[in-house]
Amino acid sequence: MAAEIVNPRSDIETDSDAGEFDPVFALHRGGKMAVQATVPIRDKDDLSLAYTPGVARVCTAIAEQPDLVNDYTWKSSVVAVVTDGTAVLGLGDIGPEASLPVMEGKAILFKQFGGVDAVPIALACTGVDEIIETVVRLAPSFGGVNLEDISAPRCFEIERRLQEQLDIPVFHDDQHGTAIVTLAALRNAARLTGRELGELRGVISGAGAAGVAIAKFLLEAGLGDVAVADRKGIVSADRDDLTPVKRELAELTNRAGLTGSLESALAGADVFIGVSGGTVPEAAVASMAKGAFVFAMANPDPEVHPDVAHRYAAVVATGRSDFPNQINNVLAFPGIFAGALQVRASRITEGMKIAAADALAAVVGEDLAADYVIPSPFDSRVAPAVTAAVAAAARAEGVARR
Amino acid sequence: MAAEIVNPRSDIETDSDAGEFDPVFALHRGGKMAVQATVPIRDKDDLSLAYTPGVARVCTAIAEQPDLVNDYTWKSSVVAVVTDGTAVLGLGDIGPEASLPVMEGKAILFKQFGGVDAVPIALACTGVDEIIETVVRLAPSFGGVNLEDISAPRCFEIERRLQEQLDIPVFHDDQHGTAIVTLAALRNAARLTGRELGELRGVISGAGAAGVAIAKFLLEAGLGDVAVADRKGIVSADRDDLTPVKRELAELTNRAGLTGSLESALAGADVFIGVSGGTVPEAAVASMAKGAFVFAMANPDPEVHPDVAHRYAAVVATGRSDFPNQINNVLAFPGIFAGALQVRASRITEGMKIAAADALAAVVGEDLAADYVIPSPFDSRVAPAVTAAVAAAARAEGVARR
Repeated sequence: MAAEIVNPRSDIETDSDAGEFDPVFALHRGGKMAVQATVPIRDKDDLSLAYTPGVARVCTAIAEQPDLVNDYTWKSSVVAVVTDGTAVLGLGDIGPEASLPVMEGKAILFKQFGGVDAVPIALACTGVDEIIETVVRLAPSFGGVNLEDISAPRCFEIERRLQEQLDIPVFHDDQHGTAIVTLAALRNAARLTGRELGELRGVISGAGAAGVAIAKFLLEAGLGDVAVADRKGIVSADRDDLTPVKRELAELTNRAGLTGSLESALAGADVFIGVSGGTVPEAAVASMAKGAFVFAMANPDPEVHPDVAHRYAAVVATGRSDFPNQINNVLAFPGIFAGALQVRASRITEGMKIAAADALAAVVGEDLAADYVIPSPFDSRVAPAVTAAVAAAARAEGVARR
Repeated sequence: MAAEIVNPRSDIETDSDAGEFDPVFALHRGGKMAVQATVPIRDKDDLSLAYTPGVARVCTAIAEQPDLVNDYTWKSSVVAVVTDGTAVLGLGDIGPEASLPVMEGKAILFKQFGGVDAVPIALACTGVDEIIETVVRLAPSFGGVNLEDISAPRCFEIERRLQEQLDIPVFHDDQHGTAIVTLAALRNAARLTGRELGELRGVISGAGAAGVAIAKFLLEAGLGDVAVADRKGIVSADRDDLTPVKRELAELTNRAGLTGSLESALAGADVFIGVSGGTVPEAAVASMAKGAFVFAMANPDPEVHPDVAHRYAAVVATGRSDFPNQINNVLAFPGIFAGALQVRASRITEGMKIAAADALAAVVGEDLAADYVIPSPFDSRVAPAVTAAVAAAARAEGVARR
């Protein structure tokens, strides 16, 4: 073993593990984030303010008046990005360590787009009770909890029970972030084509975290009907193989009573939303209603290639940055947490999510076009608009604490 | 409630909660730390490297070769600063939220002095088993664990069992940080006065985390004898009120078989080490051996005021920054973790702690004097010296992994 002492972040140019120079591995070497002090520690006077003996007075003040923790620590500006590594991107259950690059990425997106501090917390446990009790124990240190890449159906119970137990926002981004951005795109697609959500029938491919959340959220927002397909076809009340979550879904969705395959459900449908991977045959896309919307969001391979979708659809969106209309969660979660933290919301309500979607849709404004129903993640108007809308909605809904 | 949206860090000058302008509360407003991205996210190309789709290849590489997590995430440079808020400074059990200002302070000292990223984790649980299982679940995200302000005797079992279960360093700074800096000062005091540790007899006031750790560590380092006093007097084998930890202490320490009061034990003693608070009568200090060392480290009120101690002692140290010879943990913990992380040590061994103390003592060099047995926390030579010594010791002891 070499005796040389190496700064772990100093050797980006000589990345040997990845063989040939690889920009992805080079960029990731040493990680993508750091902590910084926001106060000076130049001399013993600074130290006596930021640390002992001065800090003791701040501790005492918080002990006497607990909500001062939000004023005098970073609690009210920092979010825990919590995963158990069971459903990471499209990679599946790769475990906590291997999920860390995604959680760090998420953390720096929180900072870059929302000004929100975020800390990756990848847990070495996968039991629902274990995850819940662990996050409850961590909660004093954080102003919010962003659940990430936790597999369905566990993610639903974990989020629900955590929010019941905690007085800080708990938000499973794979569910609600995706649903919020999808609703924003759908609102603008409807506006572009002069239709109301209530007259549209949608079909969602995928009954995981995103599919379930999108279905519920679009119905709340007024979509006429939606059916959800899993690998065995349309989720419908007559199926005897449904999990409790899908049974609830069968009751809430599919008012038309469709059964059978995803492809058959697409006949005459107005909206396709893909959050599953897999491929939808061109013939099924062709069978959709005139002026349909195709949101094929699987990454890296959309369920319907945009070139194919454009033959039949009025509006096409994907999850990819190299096509127009990218449905990207980063349009939502930074502003949602920034807004919630700003007013110290105790939770993120349905009204706050709707407000986020509406604010996101409104950024497009009069530039609305078939290839522009959703803003770019790099549109600097997005996060402030979402932040302000979420903060205002939190106040309107009575969950703001300042 | 005002509709105005306020940046929580923008109002330092108008701190209303603290009444008159108070520099401590003003400095703490909004907290003392933040997260920052260390890679650019300027455009969609950056995003595709740092996040999807690029990040998926990094995740896959770690899933296939788990130790790559140390190369391609911040894991190997970030420490969890974990507390349960039960023994915060001299304030006692003030709970997790009220402990956060101290944990943030600790985190920024890690960064400032050691270049180590650190995250405050104040837990809403105080059971030994709960704390251990929680930290074990958090461990995938961190390169080390700094335990902080956890009350004795729970802290001893928590540290021991955590280190048994984890392959990253677990270090209770209240114990070992204090012990390391004390040994460094003691070595230099002995050098200054031409004595060997083996010929010295010490008395420690305080049998909590620091007192127990200092006693054990100084004996390992070769101190001739040491007796430890708690509130009921010298910890000795004849006492029937000892906890298991103090019973072990009675076996390890007090070879002279002293019983009775702290004051009586000081008669003829060479070293006094105070980590208890309380006051030692001047007569007891006067009864110490000629050329004694008085390290009265209680904050803010030393057990013996330096002006009094100087009447009898050859070397006087305190925990305060406004007297010479400040015994301050910040001299140790940043470099200890920096060195351990640099070589990815699996634990912090006794040899690494001794090496840290020796390196710290050596910084003083030929400037050694009665009012300079330990360097200033702001001496820029300290952290690099400790870091290098700890890294080298980790390699020598076979716990380094690179």
